[in-house]
Amino acid sequence: MKHSWRADLIAGAVVAVLLIPQSLAYAMLAGLPPQVGLYASLLPLLAYAALGSSPVLGLGPVAVLALMIAQALSGLPAGVTPEAGALVLAAEIGALMALAALLRLDALSSLLSVPALRGFENGATLMIAASQLPVLLGSAAAGFTLPDLARTAMTGGWGLSSTVWGAVALALLLMSRRMGLPLLARLAPLLLLLGAMALSAFTPAAQGVAQVGALPTLALPLGLPSLDRALWLQLLPSAALVALMAFVSSFAVSESLAQRRGEKLLPAAELRGLAAANLVAAVSGGMPVAGSFSRSILLHEAGSRTRWTLVFVAAFMALAMLLLAGPLAHLPKPVLAATIVVAVLGGFTLRHYAEAWRYARAEGLLMAAVSTTVLLWSAGAALALGVVGSIALLIQRTAQPHVARLGRVPGTQHYRNVERYAVECQPEVVGLRIDESLVFTNARGLVDAVLARVQEHRERVGAPARVLLLMAPVNHIDVSGLTALQELRAALAAEGLRLELSEVKGPVLDRLRAVGWLEAQDVSLYLSHHEGMQAGEHALRPSLADMDAPGQL
Amino acid sequence: MKHSWRADLIAGAVVAVLLIPQSLAYAMLAGLPPQVGLYASLLPLLAYAALGSSPVLGLGPVAVLALMIAQALSGLPAGVTPEAGALVLAAEIGALMALAALLRLDALSSLLSVPALRGFENGATLMIAASQLPVLLGSAAAGFTLPDLARTAMTGGWGLSSTVWGAVALALLLMSRRMGLPLLARLAPLLLLLGAMALSAFTPAAQGVAQVGALPTLALPLGLPSLDRALWLQLLPSAALVALMAFVSSFAVSESLAQRRGEKLLPAAELRGLAAANLVAAVSGGMPVAGSFSRSILLHEAGSRTRWTLVFVAAFMALAMLLLAGPLAHLPKPVLAATIVVAVLGGFTLRHYAEAWRYARAEGLLMAAVSTTVLLWSAGAALALGVVGSIALLIQRTAQPHVARLGRVPGTQHYRNVERYAVECQPEVVGLRIDESLVFTNARGLVDAVLARVQEHRERVGAPARVLLLMAPVNHIDVSGLTALQELRAALAAEGLRLELSEVKGPVLDRLRAVGWLEAQDVSLYLSHHEGMQAGEHALRPSLADMDAPGQL
Repeated sequence: MKHSWRADLIAGAVVAVLLIPQSLAYAMLAGLPPQVGLYASLLPLLAYAALGSSPVLGLGPVAVLALMIAQALSGLPAGVTPEAGALVLAAEIGALMALAALLRLDALSSLLSVPALRGFENGATLMIAASQLPVLLGSAAAGFTLPDLARTAMTGGWGLSSTVWGAVALALLLMSRRMGLPLLARLAPLLLLLGAMALSAFTPAAQGVAQVGALPTLALPLGLPSLDRALWLQLLPSAALVALMAFVSSFAVSESLAQRRGEKLLPAAELRGLAAANLVAAVSGGMPVAGSFSRSILLHEAGSRTRWTLVFVAAFMALAMLLLAGPLAHLPKPVLAATIVVAVLGGFTLRHYAEAWRYARAEGLLMAAVSTTVLLWSAGAALALGVVGSIALLIQRTAQPHVARLGRVPGTQHYRNVERYAVECQPEVVGLRIDESLVFTNARGLVDAVLARVQEHRERVGAPARVLLLMAPVNHIDVSGLTALQELRAALAAEGLRLELSEVKGPVLDRLRAVGWLEAQDVSLYLSHHEGMQAGEHALRPSLADMDAPGQL
Repeated sequence: MKHSWRADLIAGAVVAVLLIPQSLAYAMLAGLPPQVGLYASLLPLLAYAALGSSPVLGLGPVAVLALMIAQALSGLPAGVTPEAGALVLAAEIGALMALAALLRLDALSSLLSVPALRGFENGATLMIAASQLPVLLGSAAAGFTLPDLARTAMTGGWGLSSTVWGAVALALLLMSRRMGLPLLARLAPLLLLLGAMALSAFTPAAQGVAQVGALPTLALPLGLPSLDRALWLQLLPSAALVALMAFVSSFAVSESLAQRRGEKLLPAAELRGLAAANLVAAVSGGMPVAGSFSRSILLHEAGSRTRWTLVFVAAFMALAMLLLAGPLAHLPKPVLAATIVVAVLGGFTLRHYAEAWRYARAEGLLMAAVSTTVLLWSAGAALALGVVGSIALLIQRTAQPHVARLGRVPGTQHYRNVERYAVECQPEVVGLRIDESLVFTNARGLVDAVLARVQEHRERVGAPARVLLLMAPVNHIDVSGLTALQELRAALAAEGLRLELSEVKGPVLDRLRAVGWLEAQDVSLYLSHHEGMQAGEHALRPSLADMDAPGQL
């Protein structure tokens, strides 16, 4: 116990060192004053420690969310400050997450497919880096989409000293990563911050460079966020998307770490912890929070054992705020921008696009489209495109099932596609496999697809008397599918063919039996496809003579 | 050829007899003056005859669409007449259908599942009948939703003579159906119309009863519809829903008749024909048109052979318009309302709800919800609910796959669920079947689901060395599913278990091979599940001793 306490204290210190510069930087990225990032790194951590479940979730401001927040706050009505908007956003995110936890809606997060998530993260990474370019260059350009940046870049100037500050900071950060000393790489952002503050405060080196500026007295601004109904309604759609992203990204990292650590994680507990953290952020002056990928990995590597670690992080943050309040005013903004750029660009990977494209063109395209939408339009639209696009691909797949004519692999009881394997066919039975559940999206095409295969069988193998559908790939039949199956039976009967089914799965069979479908439609059923094919060889061969007569055999 | 010409002429006459009263009635139902229904039954028929493909599609005004049109036109801005709105709607519907034909989007119509379609038609039928009640009763109440009707019923009075006209008309129409004389039943609406006009014109019987009123000179009002941008934008969403419904209902009836007639129907040609018909309606003063179920059946039964039939229908309609223009003014509206009620109520079936409910609760509920939405809110909202609800049910199903532990049916090469069949298990291999494609909606739960079954096997059968997944039900693996499969392999390896696959389908295997997945992940593959289970018995039994050692066997 004592050992764990000490391990958690050390891990807390390690993460606080990274969290101090990130809090300031991500607040700036979100278009908020720096203290809003610092406040988000205090009490919300205690709330998650009390109600969450992961001992290694690096809670606090997150770069991707900061970008989404910036876009959400860009259309605030006159008279509403970005801070006030951020608090309302945090309150809504917390409330939505609490509601989702209550209604057990955590499964909704599975609507974000891997390509959508990766496409979003890559696009957001590029957009974050791009948005910091003007700060690095001392330009007045600003914006959270490429078109906005391009528009403002026309008018924005260029500052030599800002560029020097930015370039040196970037170079130092990159060098610290290349040195092969993990400790140095971790300390570098904080050391850079302290060095830059000192240089800027005691020399004229930062003249003409944008600086963070004096902070208000660092007293936690406890109180309810604005309760303006119009403002809440305006921010609600953004809040829903940020909440989805916050939960999915937090849960993805804490779950993968839990698997590595042999721990069990409950989605509901994670939702509860994140909900509490955001609600607390809303009443203590903080921007919306989630679990950061980089800080979570760091917590794991630094040996965090319990959620007490987050309590220690919060304590270190409070201490840092007291010490830094004064000097922070002199921190040149290009240094913060350099911190952001280096922090996010490590997460960008082109490889994912190539992998997705090689495996499935459509998913690769969706991934690229989501990234592009982040850059050109907005993160919210990109996330929505990712969800809708993934669903559309799913529907399109079920709508165009692969239909295979089957033959027997010689010497086995196993049946495979005649076009892929050297298999044996029987003239009197058409063995077919429809590689999809029979649902409304493909119901309309079922009869045509089967009749086409029957015709093929008639031309290549001989005149059949029965059609035996192998139902192993049919995981479900909905009402539309059942209607189509009924039409198929009638269409086959009109050609003098009998419809039979094999290997119907338990859950599917239960439903068919519940309405007495097999009896009503007089459709035979076989436990295995082999059995069904054999039944034909023996039982039905005598009746092959009347094969061409209409009606059922 | 001559024979066909005569058959088509007779079929045309039979259908015109039904179309005359329906054109007038459905125009009234849509809140439009009667001539808009008549114009819709002239030139649009020629357009479909030229470009469509079914010889038995009963094109013209349709009751369900009339209801949708009425709702779409209920919010027109001041200064825009319903006629002008109807022409814009027809133009938009035609344009959308032409676009869908061009982009080969006819598959979009499969998004309307059978329960959604039936729920919609039932709800619309009830709503149409309800909307005609005030006309039958001589009340001033009006509306196309139950709340609207209820609200206006408070203020509307009640007319004795209207009620008598309506009741007598209803009784005559119902009696004509009960007589068992198909010819009489078909002629009844027209005879009733003529009789009512005569009675009303030459006697004072219709005093105080609402009448159709004098028509403008019957000259086709050829010309472009209003090009007001705001009006087009306002009607566009309704137009999209009406177009969807028009295509789906027309195609459903023409396709089922084509199957019965042994004809082949092309969705693209149907779309083209419907598009042309609606565009022509828009420039010749007609309301939007589609294929009517009852008139299509009638065309088939009356022996229509080619699309020339529609040309004859149009000719008869023109003749009727010339003759009726004068007398029509005296037609009492309750008679038209009775025609509508009798025409639509035949299509109402409670049985569908019970059937859907017994087979699949969720689909039964969706069907009832769609019907209720038509009655309480709007047809457009109901159609949207049907599409979204069907998709949600599809997603929910893929998200919660049935996972079965398999054993061998004694004496066969066939493997089934241990919980449903008396089967034999081997301790060293866990045979599993996941009854769903591996896609993003279920990817997150895959590892947990498999590990739970492995634990079950360990407790009940013995300590395994391999997990053999039967992939016959896996019709597709998307990028998210592949990622999950990779995580599963790693999680099993961490427990000292090897992941193997059997009966992977051709299309799925092609993708895995394209990225070299099986080799990269060192996952073995078996043609049949039986073979995979046997391989274990022979090849892997010697290594059972090191089973508990981590890593792969």
